[in-house]
Amino acid sequence: MVISRFPAIEQCINAFAKLPGIGPKSAQRIVFHLLSKDTKLSKVIASSCDSLIDKISLCPNCSMLIQSESKDDHCRNCFIKDPPEICIVEDHSDVFAIQRTGNFRGSFHVLMGLISPLDGTEPEDLTISLLVERIKTLGTKEVILALNPNMAGEGTSLYLSKILKPLGVKISKLARGIPMGSQLEYTDEITLSRSIEDRTEL
Amino acid sequence: MVISRFPAIEQCINAFAKLPGIGPKSAQRIVFHLLSKDTKLSKVIASSCDSLIDKISLCPNCSMLIQSESKDDHCRNCFIKDPPEICIVEDHSDVFAIQRTGNFRGSFHVLMGLISPLDGTEPEDLTISLLVERIKTLGTKEVILALNPNMAGEGTSLYLSKILKPLGVKISKLARGIPMGSQLEYTDEITLSRSIEDRTEL
Repeated sequence: MVISRFPAIEQCINAFAKLPGIGPKSAQRIVFHLLSKDTKLSKVIASSCDSLIDKISLCPNCSMLIQSESKDDHCRNCFIKDPPEICIVEDHSDVFAIQRTGNFRGSFHVLMGLISPLDGTEPEDLTISLLVERIKTLGTKEVILALNPNMAGEGTSLYLSKILKPLGVKISKLARGIPMGSQLEYTDEITLSRSIEDRTEL
Repeated sequence: MVISRFPAIEQCINAFAKLPGIGPKSAQRIVFHLLSKDTKLSKVIASSCDSLIDKISLCPNCSMLIQSESKDDHCRNCFIKDPPEICIVEDHSDVFAIQRTGNFRGSFHVLMGLISPLDGTEPEDLTISLLVERIKTLGTKEVILALNPNMAGEGTSLYLSKILKPLGVKISKLARGIPMGSQLEYTDEITLSRSIEDRTEL
């Protein structure tokens, strides 16, 4: 492989290949694009990746994104008391997805992952102890589990409900069912059977 | 959209979305991964993108990659006279692909694209005049057109053969045919009919 004669290229390919959804071939394509077709973009990516970590940080309590330069010593999300609900999500993209609906006014708590022993993620790696602390401090009445409907998400929901029940908090999770605009004919069996079990009264 | 409240995140997403093969959704996924799961990687990408452009440059004659810090005033590829063949490719990934075969010892000339009026790439945007200059200077005997077998590649090959014929140079292009290890049954009609036309004698 002749690319190894160019350590700068090799390092850049290896860095891009570590990003989610990008394999070694796509990384190579990206680097050659930067080298020969868009050298300016390379500088733009360098500076924006640099300032990303410098300008954005995570709230030490709820792990929500906060502007590093803001003078607040706490994030606005942490202390929303009215309505007293906390929505628990896996990561920040889920926060933005739920905020886009405009249908939730409570505060969020970002777990920073899901429990998945096979991938080496244990409960201690997540922000669960901070969540318990927050619920106790705020006197939260309801917690909404908004985790992805897959193996790790369901497992984490189960674990959290066992941990949080003793705190006397009401626990709910997002409804599973047929998505709007879909067709019954093409809906998978598990989703359809879940939507029968959880049918709602009119 | 609440992401606009974080200009650093928005800028980073926009930068990644400009890379080939990455859309706005993948770019968002990458940026949230950098923010919450791998903050070190963000710095690695920043520094490697920075040094990519600083450490690697393009030869002004043949557009091959050269180490910027090397003291040579010309690239080694430019002046290979024996064997006196020049292989013409679209971009650098094609150079590495051909070098990996170990079956070509001549020099390369990188066009930096293909003629494609619909995408706004005219012959003047490519390194064709430098190629003509090199062929005249080196007294090149043969030129191999190694362009991708698609509309733009075939069109550029046709254009180049018209430009280069008057120089008295022998022009060939990579054989089209059925790929090794494939099955006739699943080969498309155009490839199969080309492989019949260009059949080789045993």
